Amino acid sequence: MSLPEPSRRDTRLDHYVDTYAERTHGLQVSAVRALFAVANRPEVVSLAGGMPNIADLPRMELGASMDRLIQERGVQAMQYGAGQGELFMREHIIEVMAEEQVHAHPDDVVVTCGSQQALDLVTRIFIDPGDVILAEGPSYVGALGTFHSYQAKVVHVGMDAEGIEPDALAHAVVSLRAAGQRVKFLYTIPNFQNPTGVTQSVERRRALVAVAKEHDLLIIEDNPYGLLTLEGSPMPALRSMDSDNVIYLGSFSKTFAPGFRIGWALAPHAVREKLVLAQESATLAPPVFSQFAISAYLEEFDWRGQIVAFRDMYRERRDAMLAGLAEHMPAGSTWTVPNGGFFVWVTLPEGLDSQAMLPRAVSARVAYTPGTAFFADGLGSRNMRLSFCFPTPERILEGTRRLGEVISAELEMNRTFGIDPGAARHHDLQTGPAPDIS
Amino acid sequence: MSLPEPSRRDTRLDHYVDTYAERTHGLQVSAVRALFAVANRPEVVSLAGGMPNIADLPRMELGASMDRLIQERGVQAMQYGAGQGELFMREHIIEVMAEEQVHAHPDDVVVTCGSQQALDLVTRIFIDPGDVILAEGPSYVGALGTFHSYQAKVVHVGMDAEGIEPDALAHAVVSLRAAGQRVKFLYTIPNFQNPTGVTQSVERRRALVAVAKEHDLLIIEDNPYGLLTLEGSPMPALRSMDSDNVIYLGSFSKTFAPGFRIGWALAPHAVREKLVLAQESATLAPPVFSQFAISAYLEEFDWRGQIVAFRDMYRERRDAMLAGLAEHMPAGSTWTVPNGGFFVWVTLPEGLDSQAMLPRAVSARVAYTPGTAFFADGLGSRNMRLSFCFPTPERILEGTRRLGEVISAELEMNRTFGIDPGAARHHDLQTGPAPDIS
Repeated sequence: MSLPEPSRRDTRLDHYVDTYAERTHGLQVSAVRALFAVANRPEVVSLAGGMPNIADLPRMELGASMDRLIQERGVQAMQYGAGQGELFMREHIIEVMAEEQVHAHPDDVVVTCGSQQALDLVTRIFIDPGDVILAEGPSYVGALGTFHSYQAKVVHVGMDAEGIEPDALAHAVVSLRAAGQRVKFLYTIPNFQNPTGVTQSVERRRALVAVAKEHDLLIIEDNPYGLLTLEGSPMPALRSMDSDNVIYLGSFSKTFAPGFRIGWALAPHAVREKLVLAQESATLAPPVFSQFAISAYLEEFDWRGQIVAFRDMYRERRDAMLAGLAEHMPAGSTWTVPNGGFFVWVTLPEGLDSQAMLPRAVSARVAYTPGTAFFADGLGSRNMRLSFCFPTPERILEGTRRLGEVISAELEMNRTFGIDPGAARHHDLQTGPAPDIS
Repeated sequence: MSLPEPSRRDTRLDHYVDTYAERTHGLQVSAVRALFAVANRPEVVSLAGGMPNIADLPRMELGASMDRLIQERGVQAMQYGAGQGELFMREHIIEVMAEEQVHAHPDDVVVTCGSQQALDLVTRIFIDPGDVILAEGPSYVGALGTFHSYQAKVVHVGMDAEGIEPDALAHAVVSLRAAGQRVKFLYTIPNFQNPTGVTQSVERRRALVAVAKEHDLLIIEDNPYGLLTLEGSPMPALRSMDSDNVIYLGSFSKTFAPGFRIGWALAPHAVREKLVLAQESATLAPPVFSQFAISAYLEEFDWRGQIVAFRDMYRERRDAMLAGLAEHMPAGSTWTVPNGGFFVWVTLPEGLDSQAMLPRAVSARVAYTPGTAFFADGLGSRNMRLSFCFPTPERILEGTRRLGEVISAELEMNRTFGIDPGAARHHDLQTGPAPDIS
């Protein structure tokens, strides 16, 4: 079959440019997306992506399980399903959340096409253009993209080593409301935050929930990594402390596998009803076959044991990254020490710009995500997110070695050409607090 | 495990009522959704739903195929994927569309979570609140719901036995634009339209494409049923006549199985780029495992032969429905004779109201979808959609028999109580054309 060329509108002006919705003009290719192409080249050690390592899942047994599923229940598993998600899936989700002390009813759960869609639907039902969303600074780039697509205004709230600061949160809510802004919710990732790796302490969680309650502020708790703790037990979820003001978003992408695209939202009943209507409008139903497949996995396999195996594997990788950073980072660099999840957040020595340095890093066969991707307001130019989830420990060590060389060469160049460390920085760093939370 | 009660916000005022986005206030439970609960009771013959009959798919062989997929390619199939969808999936989609004379490039395809999501993303990138969408009257209830959720204004355009009328379309565009309205696109289902079963003739298609081109109007061609033709070959798609002004939406839900939730949009390049960004924001990526599973099906099975088998099965069911209607419908009823798809559109004798009659029909153990569900403007009270896709031919015959009795009893009651056929009708029927296109 000879294929025609792709349509050529791209070589002319966009015929539809006057036809798009207002929200469409803000859609842009994200820095992370552009990086995926780079990260796929085998000679590059990518510390940029967020792909889990699923190579050790028991594929022989999973294949046999899927075979039985199709043969015995294929007529249901391949048919249309409920907009809210299947009841058995929601019951399993309740079991999984109980690991983090969340006690809830399956009727309050909505199954989604990955937790990204949970985020999309929550934003859809709450956000009018110009509404304010509070979020950690920095925060998950995919959430910032979704908020932006609904024309929300994101205001970052300061963090320290225990997570978002309650006083800063209260101050932001009060001052924004006093200025006439509609503050809709706080978006927060309490465990091993993306991109910083920071985890909220239990006391901090209680304080944040109290602030939210006092100021009648909804909390969106995004928790894809909570069970992947590397030392100690999983922390209690914010939702375990307040079932009225917290919408909890979860996912099977990191505790099992992302390709099935199954996440969920647990929400107060009135909100849950709106989410189901939004889900029906968006997709009719979340992926049905995937719900049968994941439920079969949870029923037939030792999923808790698999999570322990994931923890051991990721602990080895995190340790490799911390050892590599300690060995190879030049003086003046700092980084966070995460107790779980996928990410370490690095702050470079003064005078360096992670986005400007990226092409040279890729030439040196190492990739990372520049810190600016995680701020809505241009901060983060001295930061980078390094992920330890996907490459092997050996590759991680090699990646940090290459990165150390690139950074050292940059510093050397700055010194050679007499560049003032202060002058090379983005102006935005001079107008706000340094995003260094290590 | 003892479960807590579902959250009880439903028994009080909605705590969040002042917090929702403007668009959320319009979200309502659809008539079709409420019917699903009824339709699931085994004693009721449901002529209401749109579920395909997939009981005859080769489940033994499909199970084995899925087993191999997981064992041999599970690491990729269960991993994150591309926002646009996998290349091999898009290549297969090109092959499928060639059956309807669409010649396109895989780069112009975006894979979606069912074609419902394609509809959602297209609406998302084009529609600001108050924008006008033109659509057949009646039209697919799920599309009306999505359009409504983006606060679009739907204006119906008249149909006859060959589909939407070109003159009426041109008149609508010109007069609405003259009145200052932003008319964004025509939404049309050219084959075996949902709910009427009407198919656009080739001449009609050419005329519609010409009108759209002349008036610079984008066409959204929704084509889930096109290959399920019962006599003759599939018709050429509108997209085969104009690749610049038509966005084509397709689905595997009716030609294979809906549970994998895979549909697609084929769009001019500039639009396709926006759709991918919207998809990344909405779900990161469409269901990855589903794309591997459907591609394996298309590669390893005689999918064209399976479609021939589906046609034979649905032809028998359609014939059963037409025979049952001819035998049991009282004088004064009319209905369409579809050449494919899933639906027959019935117009009841004067004086009857299909929505008011529904509870009595369900008491008589037969269900249908009232015509008003398919209009944005309140028309359709004398109509009902009957689906022949899911029940067996015997059940369909029995269903039409029960329906005939219910309608006859209604007519008898009207006569007994001397109800004037004209007076019992909804006022809206007096202010617009009767939606009778049989």
